[in-house]
Amino acid sequence: MSKNLTSRADDYSKWYNELVVKADLAENSAVRGCMVIKPYGYAIWEKMQAELDRMFKETGHQNAYFPLFVPKSLFEAEEKNAEGFAKECAVVTHYRLQNDPDNPGKLRVDPDAKLEEELVVRPTSEAIIWNTYKGWIQSYRDLPILINQWANVVRWEMRTRLFLRTAEFLWQEGHTAHATEAEALIEAEQMNNVYAEFAENFMAIPVIKGVKTESERFAGAIETYCIEALMQDGKALQAGTSHFLGQNFAKAFDVKFTNNEGKLDYVWATSWGVSTRLVGALIMTHSDDKGLVLPPNLAPSQVVIVPIFKTDEQFEAITEKAEQIIKELKALGVSCKFDKRTTHRPGAKFAQHELQGVPLRIAIGPKDLENNTVELARRDTLTKEIVQIDNIASTIKDLLELIQDELFKKALNFREEHITEVDDLETFKNVLETKTGFISAHWDGTIESEQKIKELTKATIRCIPSDNKLEAGKCIYSGNPSTQRVLFAKAY
Amino acid sequence: MSKNLTSRADDYSKWYNELVVKADLAENSAVRGCMVIKPYGYAIWEKMQAELDRMFKETGHQNAYFPLFVPKSLFEAEEKNAEGFAKECAVVTHYRLQNDPDNPGKLRVDPDAKLEEELVVRPTSEAIIWNTYKGWIQSYRDLPILINQWANVVRWEMRTRLFLRTAEFLWQEGHTAHATEAEALIEAEQMNNVYAEFAENFMAIPVIKGVKTESERFAGAIETYCIEALMQDGKALQAGTSHFLGQNFAKAFDVKFTNNEGKLDYVWATSWGVSTRLVGALIMTHSDDKGLVLPPNLAPSQVVIVPIFKTDEQFEAITEKAEQIIKELKALGVSCKFDKRTTHRPGAKFAQHELQGVPLRIAIGPKDLENNTVELARRDTLTKEIVQIDNIASTIKDLLELIQDELFKKALNFREEHITEVDDLETFKNVLETKTGFISAHWDGTIESEQKIKELTKATIRCIPSDNKLEAGKCIYSGNPSTQRVLFAKAY
Repeated sequence: MSKNLTSRADDYSKWYNELVVKADLAENSAVRGCMVIKPYGYAIWEKMQAELDRMFKETGHQNAYFPLFVPKSLFEAEEKNAEGFAKECAVVTHYRLQNDPDNPGKLRVDPDAKLEEELVVRPTSEAIIWNTYKGWIQSYRDLPILINQWANVVRWEMRTRLFLRTAEFLWQEGHTAHATEAEALIEAEQMNNVYAEFAENFMAIPVIKGVKTESERFAGAIETYCIEALMQDGKALQAGTSHFLGQNFAKAFDVKFTNNEGKLDYVWATSWGVSTRLVGALIMTHSDDKGLVLPPNLAPSQVVIVPIFKTDEQFEAITEKAEQIIKELKALGVSCKFDKRTTHRPGAKFAQHELQGVPLRIAIGPKDLENNTVELARRDTLTKEIVQIDNIASTIKDLLELIQDELFKKALNFREEHITEVDDLETFKNVLETKTGFISAHWDGTIESEQKIKELTKATIRCIPSDNKLEAGKCIYSGNPSTQRVLFAKAY
Repeated sequence: MSKNLTSRADDYSKWYNELVVKADLAENSAVRGCMVIKPYGYAIWEKMQAELDRMFKETGHQNAYFPLFVPKSLFEAEEKNAEGFAKECAVVTHYRLQNDPDNPGKLRVDPDAKLEEELVVRPTSEAIIWNTYKGWIQSYRDLPILINQWANVVRWEMRTRLFLRTAEFLWQEGHTAHATEAEALIEAEQMNNVYAEFAENFMAIPVIKGVKTESERFAGAIETYCIEALMQDGKALQAGTSHFLGQNFAKAFDVKFTNNEGKLDYVWATSWGVSTRLVGALIMTHSDDKGLVLPPNLAPSQVVIVPIFKTDEQFEAITEKAEQIIKELKALGVSCKFDKRTTHRPGAKFAQHELQGVPLRIAIGPKDLENNTVELARRDTLTKEIVQIDNIASTIKDLLELIQDELFKKALNFREEHITEVDDLETFKNVLETKTGFISAHWDGTIESEQKIKELTKATIRCIPSDNKLEAGKCIYSGNPSTQRVLFAKAY
């Protein structure tokens, strides 16, 4: 199967699209821009969900659920937010179909079932949630509210790609309400740190934490914290964002509270989210020309056992060994699948598991039975070794930790090699086109320079890194004074 | 708080509505018929999800995700299904908003952004899924497909009630594809059994398993298996359904496969679902005039500890005891919350936990410190006792199991007392209005008699029980011969 995969060098974009489909992660649906997430892809998303959910709860958040629809009058209440999303809204205008008198057996929208007020399918839920919070908040005693929602959202994007940009996608959106500006700022930054920790420790994707420039901020935010990752083709991918919303939504929805001095004030807000886009980031960070490479933390099966046999007796003996290994691995918290399908030969199974990125493959054949060994193959390095079956479970557990660690380091090395300090626009263009990656360059802080650089190079400012050091310099576009470098890149 | 709750005897319906809101489970939203599920209500739903998901996976199912939208041409492909849902469909007709030239600061639907084909917001996903399965199935080797989806769906109901009937609700929908009729039938019945097991063992709700009559079947199904529960007001509630869909959807979407004899045949289908409606069933089965009563399996916190103190020293000593208890309970898998809020007095805390149905409450005061005891109160029986603190964790674990068991038995007794065999229509009406509950009566099997009985009494046939014994008799409406009794009731 993998032999049909386009190589990254030949066409990175095609490689990605093919891989998503061939590895059975997702496919396009009959609905323009919407994807079907297939069981294997969804299992990866479930692992992400479980870990993120644990992290959210550990930091004091609870889950809740708010309506899919936002009445137009609520949607337009926070003007900047509304303006930011208006152009990509799916709108429900009717609530009934009827038989089409002109086409027997067909349906049409019932013209008498027009809604008095149109409903926007949520592109994000600030409006419906802050309209709800209004009823929940009277005093500082009602604060903070720390809520997260797992949901689907719809943004009518014109150019879509599986996982990376789809008209409907799955995500989580945290929406918190606070009594003070300081507390909301701490929350927004905390959740960006949670995302960074998740990306690095769980997904093995190194990220740069920072804040967005004004023109790249979430519509309605005062500050947008973000984590930026670098893909293997040298393009950046925004992997998560956390917004300090100030009092914008509280003002739009008139959400006031009595503070502990008895005075009325508007409530302070944050929102933060990551989406199924992370699956795209995962694929593009680690995978190779043979298919997916999954970090052990996110692999639906961390180990697969393939039996190699001719006789029923051999199969039975191998099965016994396999079941023993699975039992020992389970006790150590390692997931392992025994691929005993009779419809596929070992070679086809090897190819499939390679394509689907199972971190470790065990093959057991007749010789292994004699020698009390197995063949253990790593997906990430494509190396194989014969190992003794005694203590194999703990060997595997250690190896999985090593793989997780090495995948991160490999991606980190790539990222570090692809941050280039540049001090003039010609070199900027050159590095962007040849070496690719992040470009660390001086910028004068104006929207004009940012836009011009984008027009000239297609690179955007991905973030102003959180750990940035101050450094006097000149804007690569205008030549005007600058106090720090920012990170530019072409981006997904 | 609970003193404000309407009693069940005074007005059962009002009691329910008040309880859902006062116990912080859910509330109505700004969107007609859609609810906001608040954190406490959502935590119960999460517990249901976790257990159901485990059961689905144990029976070989995998999760996936299909689009929210169904293009109208797909939606109408299976005619009966389309006809059944057409009258309650939210329809997306446009994909963009624009500034309203007549109302500065307001938005309107952009008339130039009309979709070529309208999109139905899924009321159920058979159409979009079977259109997808068409691409996945060529041969019997591709079967069975055993997929479940956790999703939101929209049915534009005219009369809505929190959890029981909402325009948008959360559910899971299983959609399976099989090579043979027999296998699909086994699957449909198996999943109904899974639902029954879940309802009885996990939710402590006794259910009757059966099949629906033709007129009560899911639109597009050949057979609908169901579980029916009885609420405290004597009305029935359909708690889950599992449909044998025959080849209806395979024919509508032209999904054929080559069977193991090399012949082409249409694929056999099932679908099955339970929804957030189960939260309504849970509330109405166990709760009382003081508020929620939650079975321990579903309680977000199984135990709550309330400290009673005057001095800081007392609070510290109580905290130490509480933390020890929590630690011991955690080791036994019991969840326990320490309610150390300083904003509420113990009496207010007691009232809140009673209203929210925490199964066990521990109070620790200065005397308990002296005597090495705690006060342990059961929510279900409202009984209290002083118990020694030694071995309290195992005492509590046993008690929670006992409560789970007793809640089921209590509900079962109520249900058994409320199944009445009736042989004439006058008694039928009388029992339905006075005693209420299920009525076991003969029916001639015709839609006409079923409809007439419904018109005359408002009772519907809830199911033909799976374990029904054959018994000759006469239809209570027509007097025509009947071979078995069926279960009638008024229903939610």
